Amino acid sequence: MRIGWIGLGVMGAPMAMHLLRAGHEVVVHTRTRSKADALLAAGAGWANSPSEAASGRDVACSMVGLPAEVEAVHFGPTGTLAAPQLPRLLIDFSTSPRSLALRLSEESARRGVEALDAPVSGGDIGARNGTLSIMVGGSPQAFASAEQVFAAFGKTVVHVGPAGAGQATKAVNQILVAATCVGMGEALAYASSAGLDLGRVLSVVSAGAAGSWTLSNLAPRALRGDWNPGFMVDHLVKDLRIVMAEANEQGIRADLTAFAEGLYSAIQASGGGRDGTQAIVRHLLQGEG
Amino acid sequence: MRIGWIGLGVMGAPMAMHLLRAGHEVVVHTRTRSKADALLAAGAGWANSPSEAASGRDVACSMVGLPAEVEAVHFGPTGTLAAPQLPRLLIDFSTSPRSLALRLSEESARRGVEALDAPVSGGDIGARNGTLSIMVGGSPQAFASAEQVFAAFGKTVVHVGPAGAGQATKAVNQILVAATCVGMGEALAYASSAGLDLGRVLSVVSAGAAGSWTLSNLAPRALRGDWNPGFMVDHLVKDLRIVMAEANEQGIRADLTAFAEGLYSAIQASGGGRDGTQAIVRHLLQGEG
Repeated sequence: MRIGWIGLGVMGAPMAMHLLRAGHEVVVHTRTRSKADALLAAGAGWANSPSEAASGRDVACSMVGLPAEVEAVHFGPTGTLAAPQLPRLLIDFSTSPRSLALRLSEESARRGVEALDAPVSGGDIGARNGTLSIMVGGSPQAFASAEQVFAAFGKTVVHVGPAGAGQATKAVNQILVAATCVGMGEALAYASSAGLDLGRVLSVVSAGAAGSWTLSNLAPRALRGDWNPGFMVDHLVKDLRIVMAEANEQGIRADLTAFAEGLYSAIQASGGGRDGTQAIVRHLLQGEG
Repeated sequence: MRIGWIGLGVMGAPMAMHLLRAGHEVVVHTRTRSKADALLAAGAGWANSPSEAASGRDVACSMVGLPAEVEAVHFGPTGTLAAPQLPRLLIDFSTSPRSLALRLSEESARRGVEALDAPVSGGDIGARNGTLSIMVGGSPQAFASAEQVFAAFGKTVVHVGPAGAGQATKAVNQILVAATCVGMGEALAYASSAGLDLGRVLSVVSAGAAGSWTLSNLAPRALRGDWNPGFMVDHLVKDLRIVMAEANEQGIRADLTAFAEGLYSAIQASGGGRDGTQAIVRHLLQGEG
């Protein structure tokens, strides 16, 4: 397929690389051109704007950070929907509010373009290994037409419902991620205070009913003092605020999520916004004293 | 080995059965004799008291509920340490306070008996499949001498430290279990309020960074309205109160655990104490309205 790809961060870059390796014709755009070096060397084309990346493609994909960036990429003056030759399909892999997914779907439809909201889970590891979980909202036809794209980096790809359902499912996902991260932090702080050998503790609790992806993948990083982001604190805070706003709007209680949002905001406030979410361990260990 | 086994609940019965099937000579005791039927039919012997179960054995094991029961089984007038011929080793697989593990170790040592605290994780599924995680506290010699016992039903067996370290590690484990259970409840309540198809949501979020043992094993039970206990609410509340008491004593903050303890106590108060821990989903779904 002829694919335009916008956004080459810690997730977007390996996802685009998988598409390239799967034999697709990929043109990329990202704000900081140097981030495209490896992809250009591997055969990708360069576009000077989202509009140029999208023009005349089968599909234009975005994987960016904040909702405002998603809006600029698709609705801005140099956005995908301003392309001289509109693509057939837009897929937004970013995590955004459901309302933004609905707007993308509506504005696309008005121009005869299909759209899918397709946020992912699995972190940088999942993106690199091509084992992401992808939760897709949109029409069944659009979903079917994007199969080859998802197959390039997705291991578990589920069409969860109409436009917006992908983002609502991602909110569910982030509630779970927040719970496992905060649980990991509190548990390791307890273990440390109790004078236990954290490595041995981890080797046994990870394997039983206390196990989680977070514990298996992020706790070992925390134990060796590696705070590099698989998934950044800044992004989790953004996601949790989306969840809280949505929950407040719908009158849903989300006490644990609110508690997690408070903790991660505190990490942000103390300068850890660009660390990985495993920084919760450092934060709660410091809180011991 | 010649093994005395005390306690045949949802965990103890399959654990004792694994020992029997591994070729050990097993004598069992439990308060409700009918619970021993399957084991007696499979070749186990019956003892009328913990003392009788323990007498003359290589090892006497307990897998019971409350700390008071652990005390009665080992320190009571018909307890293991009152056996006419003391066993060589005591192993308590129950989840108890660290202080009780230390007392068991001391009172045993005074009589020339070794002791291990060896709480497990993995739920009824792990007990039946022989895939439990076992976190063991005690001397290296005692740990080595119990290898055959652990091998019968343990998949991940870790000697975490001296007497009491097994129970401290189990506290860490239960903090993690509580976090994943509450996260599951809050996430599924959100998904339900958002009008999502819970089965599809689960199929995609379980596979990524939001995944956990709890989500894979307990969420499907909740979705089909199966509240039967793998692990009972009453027992989780007991465990979390042990964690909270220990945390308060050591000045450790455990806010998430306290929050989880509050929720599970509310489930208990509304009559769900004998349900499985997945009842958190029902509780938080009801809380929506």
